[in-house]
Amino acid sequence: MQKVRPIIRVVLVGTEGEINLGFIARLAANFLVDEIYLVSPLVDPFSSEVRRFAAHGEYMVEHFKVVNSLDEALQGVELSACTSARVGQRSDVLRHPVTVREFVERIAPRYNSIAIVFGRESVGLTREELSKCHLLIHIPANPDYPVLNLSHAVSIVLYELWVMRSGSRSIVEPAKPDIYERIYKLLFEIAAKIIDRERLQAVDIALKRILWKCPLTAGEASALYYFAKKLRRIIGEQR
Amino acid sequence: MQKVRPIIRVVLVGTEGEINLGFIARLAANFLVDEIYLVSPLVDPFSSEVRRFAAHGEYMVEHFKVVNSLDEALQGVELSACTSARVGQRSDVLRHPVTVREFVERIAPRYNSIAIVFGRESVGLTREELSKCHLLIHIPANPDYPVLNLSHAVSIVLYELWVMRSGSRSIVEPAKPDIYERIYKLLFEIAAKIIDRERLQAVDIALKRILWKCPLTAGEASALYYFAKKLRRIIGEQR
Repeated sequence: MQKVRPIIRVVLVGTEGEINLGFIARLAANFLVDEIYLVSPLVDPFSSEVRRFAAHGEYMVEHFKVVNSLDEALQGVELSACTSARVGQRSDVLRHPVTVREFVERIAPRYNSIAIVFGRESVGLTREELSKCHLLIHIPANPDYPVLNLSHAVSIVLYELWVMRSGSRSIVEPAKPDIYERIYKLLFEIAAKIIDRERLQAVDIALKRILWKCPLTAGEASALYYFAKKLRRIIGEQR
Repeated sequence: MQKVRPIIRVVLVGTEGEINLGFIARLAANFLVDEIYLVSPLVDPFSSEVRRFAAHGEYMVEHFKVVNSLDEALQGVELSACTSARVGQRSDVLRHPVTVREFVERIAPRYNSIAIVFGRESVGLTREELSKCHLLIHIPANPDYPVLNLSHAVSIVLYELWVMRSGSRSIVEPAKPDIYERIYKLLFEIAAKIIDRERLQAVDIALKRILWKCPLTAGEASALYYFAKKLRRIIGEQR
């Protein structure tokens, strides 16, 4: 499995639920987290329930590192960020967060190793724990009910970090520039046969715009090319 | 509760797990989803287990709309997008997706109502179901294990839609421009007293850069201003 920089360490403080621990192991596999540190978990992190919810991420359960303090869990990383759904008032600087989007776009890419700290399902992180991290991250959500379940908060932060690390690579082979031109020529030929002279220019431009404004995959473009070829043949026979 | 445009409908096809249904109700409350349609769920969507995992999102369970077909669940929305972890080869156009980021940035803002369709935990959506939607959305993840648990896939899509709808509003009151200037003046005064003439310009510039490169909250800025004022007084007394 490839290593993707920066190294990501998930730190879970006082986790209370086996389902969440299992789901987080799975997410760690989905988004290639390097390390999971558990600070004094309240459940057995190696139970069969945890493994069941980890699904194909069960190998990450084997890599759980259980420690006794947050200090220990933060050793050896360049940057640490804790997470909280609670945002402080003006004077409560400890609870002034950056959004997770801002964190991954502006801050995280400058570091080689990052720890993200998540608190207890019931009460989150204490003020003392919050003060041990360099930064505070917040996931924007409905102000009337911003508190996500633990593993869902983890999923969003890990997803954002994944997008940051993997970039915006095309997932599927994109259409090559020349196929747009070929589809366009066929469609214009057809249009020229069946559209009145006074409307032809608008249709011509509209065909160009829909083709060049919308990025197609190679497969989509070749299916459209096939369609246009068939169409031209039939129109050619009729006229 | 405020309405945020576009209207978002979550459509769950053949959901198999009560925990996931409960978590999704909670997420719908966290991210202000308007409607949840369940197409032939395999579990009782109104069970106590579902309600337990919904937490403060239990009111969304009351709003579950159970229907018998995907066609029914897609009625009345302008745009429908299904989701899949599987990406097709070149010729399999049905499985050529857009990423969720591309979807929310480029496509979704143009519509007033959007349905997002999520498939079964075990096997996702059938090809027939995929073909009923306008678009296919993909969440980028580890290619060796891209399959997220259902409710975690939902969390990421709803989070992206929330960011799109709520914009990048500051969560905490940002520092006003003049406080940077006031902090800078104090720090420069101190620097001018204690730094050699030949190094002063570099320190001066560095002070400007750290103050203006890093957006501060009003609370952070006022704490730094307080610190700088104290410092100037003490330095003034000593020299």
